[in-house]
Amino acid sequence: MALTPYQQLEQEFRRLHAFRTAASVLRWDSAVMMPRGSSELRGEQLAALETQCHALVSSPRVSRLLDRAEANAQGLEEWQLANLREMRRERELAMVTPQNLVSRLAKAISRAEMRWLDAKQKSDFSVFAPHFEEVVNLTRDKAALIGKALDLSPYDALIDEFSPGLTTKEIDGIFTTLGMRLPGFIQEVIDLQAARAPLELAGRIPPSKQRQLAVEVMKAIGFPFDRGRLDESEHPFTGGAPGDIRITTRFIPNEPLSGLMGVLHEMGHAMYEVGLPEAWRGQPVGRDRGMAVHESQSLLLEMLICRNRPFLKYLRPLLERIGGVSGPEWEVENLYRLLTRVRRSLIRVDADEVTYTVHIMLRYELEKEILDGTLKVQDVPEAWNERIHDRLGVRPSNDAEGCLQDVHWATGSFGYFPSYSIGAVIAGQLYETLRSERPELDEEIAAGYFAGLFEWLRQNIHSHGARLSTPELIQNATGRPLTAAAWLRYAEAKYLEE
Amino acid sequence: MALTPYQQLEQEFRRLHAFRTAASVLRWDSAVMMPRGSSELRGEQLAALETQCHALVSSPRVSRLLDRAEANAQGLEEWQLANLREMRRERELAMVTPQNLVSRLAKAISRAEMRWLDAKQKSDFSVFAPHFEEVVNLTRDKAALIGKALDLSPYDALIDEFSPGLTTKEIDGIFTTLGMRLPGFIQEVIDLQAARAPLELAGRIPPSKQRQLAVEVMKAIGFPFDRGRLDESEHPFTGGAPGDIRITTRFIPNEPLSGLMGVLHEMGHAMYEVGLPEAWRGQPVGRDRGMAVHESQSLLLEMLICRNRPFLKYLRPLLERIGGVSGPEWEVENLYRLLTRVRRSLIRVDADEVTYTVHIMLRYELEKEILDGTLKVQDVPEAWNERIHDRLGVRPSNDAEGCLQDVHWATGSFGYFPSYSIGAVIAGQLYETLRSERPELDEEIAAGYFAGLFEWLRQNIHSHGARLSTPELIQNATGRPLTAAAWLRYAEAKYLEE
Repeated sequence: MALTPYQQLEQEFRRLHAFRTAASVLRWDSAVMMPRGSSELRGEQLAALETQCHALVSSPRVSRLLDRAEANAQGLEEWQLANLREMRRERELAMVTPQNLVSRLAKAISRAEMRWLDAKQKSDFSVFAPHFEEVVNLTRDKAALIGKALDLSPYDALIDEFSPGLTTKEIDGIFTTLGMRLPGFIQEVIDLQAARAPLELAGRIPPSKQRQLAVEVMKAIGFPFDRGRLDESEHPFTGGAPGDIRITTRFIPNEPLSGLMGVLHEMGHAMYEVGLPEAWRGQPVGRDRGMAVHESQSLLLEMLICRNRPFLKYLRPLLERIGGVSGPEWEVENLYRLLTRVRRSLIRVDADEVTYTVHIMLRYELEKEILDGTLKVQDVPEAWNERIHDRLGVRPSNDAEGCLQDVHWATGSFGYFPSYSIGAVIAGQLYETLRSERPELDEEIAAGYFAGLFEWLRQNIHSHGARLSTPELIQNATGRPLTAAAWLRYAEAKYLEE
Repeated sequence: MALTPYQQLEQEFRRLHAFRTAASVLRWDSAVMMPRGSSELRGEQLAALETQCHALVSSPRVSRLLDRAEANAQGLEEWQLANLREMRRERELAMVTPQNLVSRLAKAISRAEMRWLDAKQKSDFSVFAPHFEEVVNLTRDKAALIGKALDLSPYDALIDEFSPGLTTKEIDGIFTTLGMRLPGFIQEVIDLQAARAPLELAGRIPPSKQRQLAVEVMKAIGFPFDRGRLDESEHPFTGGAPGDIRITTRFIPNEPLSGLMGVLHEMGHAMYEVGLPEAWRGQPVGRDRGMAVHESQSLLLEMLICRNRPFLKYLRPLLERIGGVSGPEWEVENLYRLLTRVRRSLIRVDADEVTYTVHIMLRYELEKEILDGTLKVQDVPEAWNERIHDRLGVRPSNDAEGCLQDVHWATGSFGYFPSYSIGAVIAGQLYETLRSERPELDEEIAAGYFAGLFEWLRQNIHSHGARLSTPELIQNATGRPLTAAAWLRYAEAKYLEE
């Protein structure tokens, strides 16, 4: 029997999925296994795969099939319709940017990324500036084209690529609320914490033991080691694909908990991937719902669940049994204080959960201005330094501690930063609903039982794949639109407790 | 300036190389890193890449470009002409087998391979037979088609796929010579060795130390660790690609030298890949010259260079310093006797260098008869048992020790087996020329200096890539056509010394 146009589309997108996940495994290999000198060949492999993916999505065949499937959509079920919508979306995004612009941008990014590393090491923005400018100009062109096609403002178009359905309107609303509360809140927390400074961790845990401990925790959380791996890389990340999910962290002898915290963060990402609807694996509707939701999953697990007393109650005996550490600094209350310490600092990736959003709001503000041209590239360092001082009371002594600290802008990832903080806000709202629907949560976590937590997440988030937009997904899971209120309630309860 | 058709072909084949090497890294990952449960996704990735490679080579565009480049070949240099010839060859091979036959064969092989494993475990040929028959029938069709296109007999067509330019005529000549000498030779060697049985190795070397030792030897040999890796897998193999070459072995505590021997064998393969002409990397003419030459490189290093006294003189102090072993059984002469022990045995992969060819000749004989239909599939076990007993005086007690021991036939790799022994014969002839042109070789190896050996191999074999056919390459390196004479002289000198 001949396949329908819709069925043929499923076949095409399954092939696309095979190429994309192949590239994903190769990227994992680049960061974890590949010998240093092999990057040129790897670059060619990844470029060939990316070109192939682009060619596949933008082929005349897919175009024809989409038209025919959409014209005959009346027989399709809800998930199939959502899949068709996501296919169309992928195609529009692929078609709207001319191949010429794509390859110019790719080359500009490759140059800018190298110069960024160089500039950061020398702490000299001028080395980076002209290459950054080129990326900004090309990204602006791309944003305008996508915006026109999707009927969005240029910056909204970039946000939408990362977190479908999210717009500046929602982000502005949330950031305004947070911006009003955070300065005072941070001061209150710091004052309160000054009175009860934790003991620093004196003991070391050798990396092999840290790894053993992390594996034990991952097993308890439910990581599928028969279809996944834990490895080490310079920066923690989640790679591979559902069915072959690979997380990494970095175990440092003197920082006995940082490797584990990396694992817990990546576990949030990994469990989301693993929990995506298996029946739709390989199809656009079976994918995750973008970066804000992804980040909500990693932050929910790391920040809200694990940097919390019930998890530390579970962890405490493991630290002693596997890590071989004990003493007053390893008691639950001290660990809790260490892992929830709030400080005014310069570097985003080292920031705590409370000040983190200030770092993000700064980048959000600046990147909008850079993109619309009101902030000139050469004025970025000064603007950065002024505003981080205004917002957080700290001033970078050089650009490496300032506007050169993150790679995102060099890679043209404008519109990505907000997803970190929107992810945190989503996590706060999910957590509130989760706790009210699952009052036994704390007891379960303290007992090392995570199945209840993930049953809830699977049912309310993971299993929906990309069926709903970002706002619809949150509405569906929590019964209300996304606001900052729940996260603020969570943060105030946690950080202002007497 | 517009690219010429030839230059456009180079671009197309560079893309092909990117896809092929991507698949090669994924296959390495499957054997070394991949979680067991992830094989389904991996299968989809590899199938997508293979389909893509086939589509690329057999595209109308490549056809058009080949016609135009061949019509305008007068401006091309020798290497470019050879490259064009190899491109045409790849295209003919890809075109001659209809996609329908390719996919039926792939499916039949996949089934047969599973049933072969099952049959081997149960030692029950009947489980395998019907699936084997299917593979045989489809391989026969494929051989006929390729043979017709290349103007070769069906079996020669299969050999040619693995070792371009080699035919049954040459193999028969070599095997006849070996077949006349080997039975008597083996008996003489066994009689001689009976009088001086070596001491067995009592000491153990922990795998971590075996690895350290192997890495030290690999560094001395010149393995590019900045563009290569050593890992462990169930069976040793060489994967990746030049520029990212990855060898594996298996370190067994009770068999202190088997892991190292695996490394040395794979190092021969790896150094060949690494030594291929860099200017032609990614082009068909820059590839290796097929399996017989590849096997000659691994056997030359493992058997002729390393299972020999000069290498063992170099190895001996490393065994003591890194492996922590000493005593009479670890003396050079005893190690030499252990590593050159000749025995009549049933299993090819465990056979010594002398009886190995008997195992290969048996398979060569049988697979020709299976392919042309004179030996029925159901009669294979009995024919095998009869003939191995005739040739080597041993009789399998079950099919796992007999015709089920190798996977090659299940995967349709007819025409592959001879490359092992032709590889050995090539190694013998290269070794004779090498020694006469480089009389200081033994002293160099004993001193752990391998650069001279590889300078010669690079100049005479590696750097030629696929520019010459297999017979031309040997003629060019040694000044005469390939015969078994040099290997026999080598083997008699080595194994019949008083």
